[in-house]
Amino acid sequence: MTSRIDDLVARTRAFIDTHVIPVEDEFDGDVAAAGGDELRAGLQHEARAAGVFAPHAPREYGGLGLGMAERAPVFEAAGRSLFGPLALNINAPDEGNLHLLERVATGGQRERYLAPLARGEQRSAFAMTEPPPGAGSDPGALRTLARRDDDGWLITGRKKFITGADGAGFFIVMARTSGEPDSTGGATMFLVPADRTGIRVIRHVNTMDRSMLGGHCELDLTDVRVEQDDVLGALDQGFHHAQVRLGPARLTHVMRWLGAAQRAHETAVRYVSERSAFGRPLAEQGMIELMIADNEIDLAATRSLLLTACRVLDAGHAGREETSLAKVFGAEAAHRVADRAVQMCGGAGVSADLPTARIAREIRPFRIYDGPSEVHRMSLARRAVRRYGGPR
Amino acid sequence: MTSRIDDLVARTRAFIDTHVIPVEDEFDGDVAAAGGDELRAGLQHEARAAGVFAPHAPREYGGLGLGMAERAPVFEAAGRSLFGPLALNINAPDEGNLHLLERVATGGQRERYLAPLARGEQRSAFAMTEPPPGAGSDPGALRTLARRDDDGWLITGRKKFITGADGAGFFIVMARTSGEPDSTGGATMFLVPADRTGIRVIRHVNTMDRSMLGGHCELDLTDVRVEQDDVLGALDQGFHHAQVRLGPARLTHVMRWLGAAQRAHETAVRYVSERSAFGRPLAEQGMIELMIADNEIDLAATRSLLLTACRVLDAGHAGREETSLAKVFGAEAAHRVADRAVQMCGGAGVSADLPTARIAREIRPFRIYDGPSEVHRMSLARRAVRRYGGPR
Amino acid sequence: MTSRIDDLVARTRAFIDTHVIPVEDEFDGDVAAAGGDELRAGLQHEARAAGVFAPHAPREYGGLGLGMAERAPVFEAAGRSLFGPLALNINAPDEGNLHLLERVATGGQRERYLAPLARGEQRSAFAMTEPPPGAGSDPGALRTLARRDDDGWLITGRKKFITGADGAGFFIVMARTSGEPDSTGGATMFLVPADRTGIRVIRHVNTMDRSMLGGHCELDLTDVRVEQDDVLGALDQGFHHAQVRLGPARLTHVMRWLGAAQRAHETAVRYVSERSAFGRPLAEQGMIELMIADNEIDLAATRSLLLTACRVLDAGHAGREETSLAKVFGAEAAHRVADRAVQMCGGAGVSADLPTARIAREIRPFRIYDGPSEVHRMSLARRAVRRYGGPR
Amino acid sequence: MTSRIDDLVARTRAFIDTHVIPVEDEFDGDVAAAGGDELRAGLQHEARAAGVFAPHAPREYGGLGLGMAERAPVFEAAGRSLFGPLALNINAPDEGNLHLLERVATGGQRERYLAPLARGEQRSAFAMTEPPPGAGSDPGALRTLARRDDDGWLITGRKKFITGADGAGFFIVMARTSGEPDSTGGATMFLVPADRTGIRVIRHVNTMDRSMLGGHCELDLTDVRVEQDDVLGALDQGFHHAQVRLGPARLTHVMRWLGAAQRAHETAVRYVSERSAFGRPLAEQGMIELMIADNEIDLAATRSLLLTACRVLDAGHAGREETSLAKVFGAEAAHRVADRAVQMCGGAGVSADLPTARIAREIRPFRIYDGPSEVHRMSLARRAVRRYGGPR
Repeated sequence: MTSRIDDLVARTRAFIDTHVIPVEDEFDGDVAAAGGDELRAGLQHEARAAGVFAPHAPREYGGLGLGMAERAPVFEAAGRSLFGPLALNINAPDEGNLHLLERVATGGQRERYLAPLARGEQRSAFAMTEPPPGAGSDPGALRTLARRDDDGWLITGRKKFITGADGAGFFIVMARTSGEPDSTGGATMFLVPADRTGIRVIRHVNTMDRSMLGGHCELDLTDVRVEQDDVLGALDQGFHHAQVRLGPARLTHVMRWLGAAQRAHETAVRYVSERSAFGRPLAEQGMIELMIADNEIDLAATRSLLLTACRVLDAGHAGREETSLAKVFGAEAAHRVADRAVQMCGGAGVSADLPTARIAREIRPFRIYDGPSEVHRMSLARRAVRRYGGPR
Repeated sequence: MTSRIDDLVARTRAFIDTHVIPVEDEFDGDVAAAGGDELRAGLQHEARAAGVFAPHAPREYGGLGLGMAERAPVFEAAGRSLFGPLALNINAPDEGNLHLLERVATGGQRERYLAPLARGEQRSAFAMTEPPPGAGSDPGALRTLARRDDDGWLITGRKKFITGADGAGFFIVMARTSGEPDSTGGATMFLVPADRTGIRVIRHVNTMDRSMLGGHCELDLTDVRVEQDDVLGALDQGFHHAQVRLGPARLTHVMRWLGAAQRAHETAVRYVSERSAFGRPLAEQGMIELMIADNEIDLAATRSLLLTACRVLDAGHAGREETSLAKVFGAEAAHRVADRAVQMCGGAGVSADLPTARIAREIRPFRIYDGPSEVHRMSLARRAVRRYGGPR
Repeated sequence: MTSRIDDLVARTRAFIDTHVIPVEDEFDGDVAAAGGDELRAGLQHEARAAGVFAPHAPREYGGLGLGMAERAPVFEAAGRSLFGPLALNINAPDEGNLHLLERVATGGQRERYLAPLARGEQRSAFAMTEPPPGAGSDPGALRTLARRDDDGWLITGRKKFITGADGAGFFIVMARTSGEPDSTGGATMFLVPADRTGIRVIRHVNTMDRSMLGGHCELDLTDVRVEQDDVLGALDQGFHHAQVRLGPARLTHVMRWLGAAQRAHETAVRYVSERSAFGRPLAEQGMIELMIADNEIDLAATRSLLLTACRVLDAGHAGREETSLAKVFGAEAAHRVADRAVQMCGGAGVSADLPTARIAREIRPFRIYDGPSEVHRMSLARRAVRRYGGPR
Repeated sequence: MTSRIDDLVARTRAFIDTHVIPVEDEFDGDVAAAGGDELRAGLQHEARAAGVFAPHAPREYGGLGLGMAERAPVFEAAGRSLFGPLALNINAPDEGNLHLLERVATGGQRERYLAPLARGEQRSAFAMTEPPPGAGSDPGALRTLARRDDDGWLITGRKKFITGADGAGFFIVMARTSGEPDSTGGATMFLVPADRTGIRVIRHVNTMDRSMLGGHCELDLTDVRVEQDDVLGALDQGFHHAQVRLGPARLTHVMRWLGAAQRAHETAVRYVSERSAFGRPLAEQGMIELMIADNEIDLAATRSLLLTACRVLDAGHAGREETSLAKVFGAEAAHRVADRAVQMCGGAGVSADLPTARIAREIRPFRIYDGPSEVHRMSLARRAVRRYGGPR
C-alpha cells in the first residue's frame, strides 16, 4: 500500500474514533434512534471536513477515486463503527449503486443520479429481491413485471428486503421485460425516482440489525410508469448488469464487516487484559488465548482472501469465484469473531456496555444478505465440479 | 414417562400455543413492552385455570410436585414460548430460589418467602454476582461484606447481573461473613425483603435478551441491616448452600432453552417445507437437510444428557458433573439450533416475522449466564484429570 | 444397571487389560500380523475361561443373553482394545449376523449356522454392498442377481467391502430375486457356505483400518447355486429383514468405538498429566483442558444417546431414528475424541508408542461404514420434514 | 506470477504426474517400501532431466534460485505427490537446512555441507527436539549438553523425532553451551557428519506418516566431539539462528501440504462426479456440494495466507506472525480438506485404491510437527494482547 493510502487509513481511523463511535455507542448502533437522515447529514459534513468523504467515488464527482485494493483498508477503518460507512457515504446500497451507475449509466443518467449520490445529496435503493415465490436467493424467480405501454412500460410487483428504501431518492428496479419466472433471461433495470406514482414503501421488515439507514423495506409497485431513458443499461440485460454491481458490492461488504469484527476483537482483548479470575489474568488463560488466536486467524484469512479478490477486480476481471470465496468466508469469519468477542467479555459482552453484542447483532444477517452462504457454496461447488470433475 | 406426565405435557403445550405464543409474537418477546408484571399476572391466572401452574412447586404450596425427570418435558413444553416459563411460574430465578428455600429455609422462612413465591404472589432475585473484580464466574472473589452490628449484620456491596431484581419482592443476598476475597469460604446467604433500607436497583444492564421479567440489574447495598433470622441456612455456608440451587437450576435452564430451540427448529422446518429455490423445494436440498439433521442431533443429544442428569438428581446425588455436561452441551447446542433455524429461514429468519431471530437473541447469553462454557469445561477437565491422570 | 452387569463389566475390563491389550499394543492393532484366526482362537479360549465370552448370544447357545442396554457397558469395556470384540466373539459382522439369525432363521438354519457362530467355531460375513454402480450407501441399487434354476437359484454378482469375508465359514448374501436395480423391493437373503462353488474372495480392499479379522473384501459370485432352504427369511423380503439386523448392529458398533475412544481419551489425559511445557503441567493449560472437556462431553453425549436408543430397542421398537442419531453422533464424536487425544499427546500421539494413532485410524472409517453420516443425516432430515413440515 | 514461474509450475506438474505419482500409488506412499534412497536417486535424476530440480537452491549451487512467493506454486505442484518434494530435492528437513546454511554457514561450511545438499548428493537432519522433559514444543527446555573439552566440545544428549536422520550425511545438532534447561539462551548449533563417533540412530519412531525418507528417529549422542569450525553461526546463538530456518520452513511445509490436499480434493471431486446414489449424481447433492465448497474455501484461504506471508519474507522481514498464521491455518485446513475428500469417496476413500486415505494419514501429523497448533495459537494470542491489550 502506498503512503497515500496509509495516511488516508490513519485519518479515517481517527475520524471514526473521534466523531462517529461516540454517537454509535450512545445509541447502541440504532441509526433511526440516533437521528436517521439528520445524523447522516451531520456525519457526512464532518467527514468532508476531515477529508475522508467518498473515498470510492470518481474524482470528477468529488470522490477520492480509490481502486478496490485501495478501498479495502479504508473501508475497514470506516467499518470499525457501525455508523462509519454512513459518514463516509460508502454504505450499502449507495456504494454499490454508484459503482453500477459509473459503469452502465448514460451521460444524462450520471448527472441526474450518480452525481447527487456521490455527493451524498441523495440516497438510493436497489430493488431486486421479492417475497416468495419471487426472486430471493434465486434471482431467476423474478416476478415483478414491466409490461409495454406506449413508448414506455408499467411496472407492477412486490419487492422485499430493499435496503435503504425508506427515504431513498431513487430506486434501481429490476423487472421482467421478457421470459417467464424461473427463466434466467429477460430482466431489465429501471431508474425510478422515489416520487414516481405507484411506488410505495409498505413497511420496514423488522430485522435484528438496526444500523442500516432506511431499513430493509417491503415495496409495492403498481403500474409505475417508466420511459425509455429510465432504462439503466440495455433492455433484457438486467441480470447481466447486476453482475457488474455484484462483485464489488460483495467485497465492500466484507471490508466493512471486517472493520466491525476487528473492533469487537480489540474490545475483547482489552477486556480480558484488564480482568482476572481464578487468580490469573483472563488474557493468560488458555481457553481465552484460543479465542483470541482464532479471531486473529479469522481476521487475517479474511483480509488475505479479500485482497486477493480485490486484485482480480482491479485487473479488470469479474472475479466471480474470488468474490464468492471472500464473501462466504468473510461473512462467517466475522460472525465467529464477533461471537467469540461476546463470549470473552462475559456478561458485559452481551450488554450494551460494550459494542460486542451490537456488532454481533449487525453482522449475523450478512451470512444471509447478499447471497446466503449456502448459495455461494453451491456456486463454488459447481465451478469445482466443472474444473475437476471430468474424466482423467 | 407416565401417562400423567404425558397428559400434563400435552396440556402445557396446548396452553402455550393458545395463550402465550400470540402475546410473545405480538411483542417480539420483549416482556417489558408486553406488560411486565401485569402480563405475568394475567398469564399466571390463565395457567392456573388450565391446571398447568407451578408444576415444580411442592403440593403443599399448590404446585404439582414434579421430580426433575418429570419436569424435563413439561418445562420444555413451557419453554416453547419465551413467556411460557413466566406463565407457569417456573422462570429463573424464582424457580431455583423456590428449590433452594425448600431445601434450606426454616419453617418461618418458608411461610414468609416460599409460599408467596410458589403461588406467584411475589418474585425474587438471587443476588450473588458482582461487578469486577468481585464474584463473577469465580464465586470465590466475593466482595460484598456483611459486618457484625449488634445481633445482626450490615451488608454493603455492589451486585451485578441480578436477574429479576427490578420488581422482586425479596432478595437472597450472598455476602462475606468471614474470610477474604479469593478465599472460597466464609459466605452467608441472607433473605432481604426488597423494601429493606439500603438496597437499591441502580440500573438495568441493557442485555440483548429481553424476555426476563425484572431485567438483569445492578444493585447497590449500603448498610442493609439483616438479623439472625434473615440468615438462610447456616452461617458461613453460603457457597455450600448455593450448590443445592446450582444443579437443578442449571437443568431447568436447559429444559426451557430446549423448548425454545425446538420451536425455532420446527419453525424453520416448516419454512423450508413451504418454499422452493432453483427449482426444488428447500427441504429437499442437501445443505438444508444437513442443517435439519444437525438440529435433530443437537436436540436429541441435549435431551439425552438432560435426562441422564435429572435421574442422577432424582436419585439424591449432587450430580455436579452430569449437570455441567448437560448445561454446557445444552447451551451450545441450543445456540447452534437457533442459529441454523435463522439461516434456514433466510431474510425472514433474521426478522421479527418469525420467532427464530428472537429465540437466537434470547438463547445466546446462556452460553455465559449460569457459568460460562469455559468455566464448566475447566471444571470438567479437572475432574477428568483427577480420574484418569494418575500413573498407571 | 444391576450389580450383575457391573460385575461383568469389571471382569471384562480386567480381562481386556490383562489378556488383550498387550497383544494389541505389540502388533499395533494389526490383526493379521498378530496371528489372525489363530489369535482369535487363543483370545476366545481365554475369554471363555474368564467367563466373559459371548455376552450377547442366547443362553441356549452358550451366551450370556444380555439385552441391548445391558450390552452397552460390556461392549464398551471390550472395545477398549481393538482386539477385545474379537476375544469376546462380539465383533462385526458376526455379532449382527447372530442377531439376524436369531430373529429370522429356521430351526435347521439355527443349528447349522447360529450355533457354531455363537460358540466362535465359525466366522461369517454379510454380503450386501457392491462396487459402483451397485448397492452402496443406497441399498436399492442392488445388482447381484439370483435367477431361478429348477427348484433353486443361481446367484451372480460382485460384492465389495464385505467385512470378515476372508476365512468366513458362511455368507449371508443379498441378491435380487425380483424388481430392477434402483427399485427398493425384490431382494432376498441367502445363506451360502463359503465352500459353495462359484463364490470367491477376489481381494482384500486395502483399507486404513487393520483390526477387522478377515478384512474388507471383494467377492465374486458366479452361478452360485442356492436351494429353497438356503433362503433366510422370506423371499423378496431381504431389505425388510436387513432392518432387523441394522438397528442393533449400529448400536453395538457405537458401543465398541466408544470403548476405543474412551481408551484414547484416558491415554491422553494421563499423558498430559505427566508432562510440562512452558513451566506448567500440560494438564493445567487451558487449551488442553478444553480438549479434555470436549472429549468428556462427546463421550457422555454418545453414551446418553446410545442408552436412549438401546431402551427403545429393548422395548421392542425398531428405533430407526434413535439408532441413526446414536450412530451418526457416536461415529463423529468418537472420531473427534480420538483426534483430540492424538493432538494432546503430540509427537507420541501420532506414533505407535501410544494407542492413540491406531485408535484414530480404526475409528475414522466408521463415519462411512454402516451408512455414511450424510445418508443418516438425509434420513433424519426427511423424518423431521414429515413430522414438522406440514402446514400449521 | 511471471510466465517463467507459470512455465515451471506446468512442467513440475507434468513431471509429477508422469514420473512420481505412479510410484507413489504403487507403494501407497510408503517411501521405504518404494526403495528409500534408491528411489530418491532415481527420481532426482529424472527431475534434473526435466529441468525442475532444486528450484529453491541458489543458482551457484545448481538451483533455480526462486524467492518465497515464487516457490509457493512450484512447491505446491511438487506436493501433489507425497514423493514429489523428494524428487525435486525440496523435502524437509533438507530444504530448510539448505536455507539455514545459505544464511549462516561460513565459506568452508558451504562447500562441505551446502553444495552436496543442493545437488542432492547428501541428505541432512536437524537435531533439535528431545524426548520429555527436553526440548519439544518448548525449545527452552533443551537438555543436550556440549561441554568444553580442549579446543572443542563433547556433546551428550538424546534427540527425538529427528526427521530424515536415518541415512543423513550430516546433522545440525542443537546443544546447550551455556544456561540451564528452561532458560531461553545458551544454545549453539553444530555441524556433525553422520560418521562422527558417538552419534547413533537408536530407532525409528513408528509414526503414522510413511513418506518422509529417513523416518523420524531417536538419536543418541554420547561424547560426540566437535571443533570450533563445526559451530554453525555464532556461539550461544542457536535459538536465534533457528529463527532464520523457522519461518521459511513453515511456509514450505504449507506449500507441500497444500499440493497434497489439492490432489485429495481433485480426486474426490472426480469421484463424486462419476457416481450416483438415490437417483442423482453425488456431485449434485447438497451435502457433497458443501464439502466441495468448504474444500475450495480452505484451499483458497490457505493460499492467500501463504502468499501474504511469502511476500513479507521476500521483503526481508522475519514474519513471525504471518508464518504462524499460515502454518496453523494451513495445517488445519489441509487436514480438513483431506478428511472431507476421504468422506466424499466413501469406502474407496478409506482404501489404498485412491490417494485420499494416504494423504490424510500423511497430513494429520502436521498439526503437531513444526509447532503444534496450540503453541502457535498461544504465540498469536500473546502478540494480540501486547498489541490491543493496553488501556485505551
